[in-house]
Amino acid sequence: MIIDCHGHYTTAPKALQAYRDAQIAALKDPAQPPYDGKIDISDDQIRESLEGAQLKLQRERGTDVTIFSPRASAMAHHIGDVRTSLNWSRRCNDLIHRVCTLYPSNFVGVCQLPQSPGVPPSNSIEELERCVNELGFIGCNLNPDPSGGHWTAPPLIDKYWYPIYEKMVELDVPAMVHVSSSCNPVFHATGAHYINADTTAFMQFIQGDLFKDFPTLRFIIPHGGGAVPFHWGRYRGLAQDMKRPVLEEHLLKNVFFDTCVYHLPGIELLLKVIPVDNILFGSEMVGAVRGIDPRTGQYYDDTKKYVDTLPLSEGDRYKLFEGNARRVYPRIAKRLSK
Amino acid sequence: MIIDCHGHYTTAPKALQAYRDAQIAALKDPAQPPYDGKIDISDDQIRESLEGAQLKLQRERGTDVTIFSPRASAMAHHIGDVRTSLNWSRRCNDLIHRVCTLYPSNFVGVCQLPQSPGVPPSNSIEELERCVNELGFIGCNLNPDPSGGHWTAPPLIDKYWYPIYEKMVELDVPAMVHVSSSCNPVFHATGAHYINADTTAFMQFIQGDLFKDFPTLRFIIPHGGGAVPFHWGRYRGLAQDMKRPVLEEHLLKNVFFDTCVYHLPGIELLLKVIPVDNILFGSEMVGAVRGIDPRTGQYYDDTKKYVDTLPLSEGDRYKLFEGNARRVYPRIAKRLSK
Repeated sequence: MIIDCHGHYTTAPKALQAYRDAQIAALKDPAQPPYDGKIDISDDQIRESLEGAQLKLQRERGTDVTIFSPRASAMAHHIGDVRTSLNWSRRCNDLIHRVCTLYPSNFVGVCQLPQSPGVPPSNSIEELERCVNELGFIGCNLNPDPSGGHWTAPPLIDKYWYPIYEKMVELDVPAMVHVSSSCNPVFHATGAHYINADTTAFMQFIQGDLFKDFPTLRFIIPHGGGAVPFHWGRYRGLAQDMKRPVLEEHLLKNVFFDTCVYHLPGIELLLKVIPVDNILFGSEMVGAVRGIDPRTGQYYDDTKKYVDTLPLSEGDRYKLFEGNARRVYPRIAKRLSK
Repeated sequence: MIIDCHGHYTTAPKALQAYRDAQIAALKDPAQPPYDGKIDISDDQIRESLEGAQLKLQRERGTDVTIFSPRASAMAHHIGDVRTSLNWSRRCNDLIHRVCTLYPSNFVGVCQLPQSPGVPPSNSIEELERCVNELGFIGCNLNPDPSGGHWTAPPLIDKYWYPIYEKMVELDVPAMVHVSSSCNPVFHATGAHYINADTTAFMQFIQGDLFKDFPTLRFIIPHGGGAVPFHWGRYRGLAQDMKRPVLEEHLLKNVFFDTCVYHLPGIELLLKVIPVDNILFGSEMVGAVRGIDPRTGQYYDDTKKYVDTLPLSEGDRYKLFEGNARRVYPRIAKRLSK
């Protein structure tokens, strides 16, 4: 079985965006109560939105299951207030649940959290519990910068975040560290903000002792870990200069990377420097880069093609494509047995 | 000849930091005029500060000349106001000039600019001219985020920056895109902020048409280009999706990377995906990572060791170690002939 740990519902029916547009429009009049209108999407519309996109790509590329979450760039936690974010998150998560119910062997859900700038992460606990306990989700996306590129929240190692970590540990679900769109014009979302957030989170983990406090807490750093594998010597050296434990001991029982790196040399480097136990197959499809590389004739984001060229042992291949995902997202077993 | 394009005076005599401490202390009383006391450093103190550090490492590692600038993390453009930054920059640049005068065959100067949050880059023109025309410097370090991790300045492709670019073009000097320390606790300086800035700048260049407006403007993106080479497929794909020209045409006549990547697999990737014409040897020494890698017994930042293991042709080796630096910093020729 091949599990893709990183897929977003970027192709949702238009009614979802219409809801969001109405929600944002209503913000202009603070006298109005927060908008939370009806979203009218049929099962057939959901099927149609997936059949020509994620499901088609699963079939074409030979992957089986996608760990699926709402469109990351649309989380936009910086828009509106905590009520805006809660309504929007619930709608997005409910739609993911419908996808997973319609295609239980193709999609397993991961939720968006109702984060909002300045609002403590404890506020997201209720929605996390709802998604895991009621909707059968197996993890969450945690945004280290709900301000959307202004970086006003404390580092992920700060006790500020501990309430949500306690709940993650209790529910035995991991978080993918994933920012959303940037409202700061210096940061292109998928080309800078996403990658920077990955790099930033890893360095924060080096600085702290988070996993002493939470030995079973688990994070996936997407996009191949941002800049981290390319600068693995820098991070090893910084940890050493800072008298931190070696990274394998300090972080690699708790921190994992996906394979969302869109060329073969990048994937080769990732597999060369990061232990295979810490790499989960992912493609971010349908996501950041949608084109076909004219030099290979393949989709940039068909990351399985790159992995397949590597001389992995059967054991390592199993870990990367399935075993690690089962270990990091233990609740997936119950979903896949249905 | 081996030219290291990226060295900082991180070992300056203590009197420099004492000046800075006094300058910062004086900021507490706004009624005081900006501090600009005397810095008493002898030539012998300068010699001593270099002999056991940069000069020793040049000899041990077999490099000849370092393109040398003030300590990047100490630029701290976010501290005080524009007068603070001007006084501090002039002192730091003057000290680099003394280094280059004492050791004209070992060091060539690059200046810090007196940037300050909210102050237009045109304000830095005078100091750039002074450093190039009077002190014989061959380039500058341009901070894309003078706020120190709050990212309040416009993107580098914004016309806001054009006055300093016009002067760079007129003087025929390049800029290394280099942030300073971070006053935002989310960003570790050398482990996150530096690398993020590199990645961010490159993505901004993709988004804009800066080099149509300035065909001879040149930037060095340090630290191996941040995350860019690791995600080269992502950047190629993003440019393609955004209908930008291919990166070789769009950026690689104007944008260069150094080799400050502290492990062999990273250097291998850099040389595999970035054309050798766009790579300048650099080590960032004495800089971000000072330790010895217990797995190799070598300094992490002895980047020449990594490059030397690669099967480069003599022509490519010349480009990487010398020719590209001469092309990107044309004023170096006059300095080295002295």
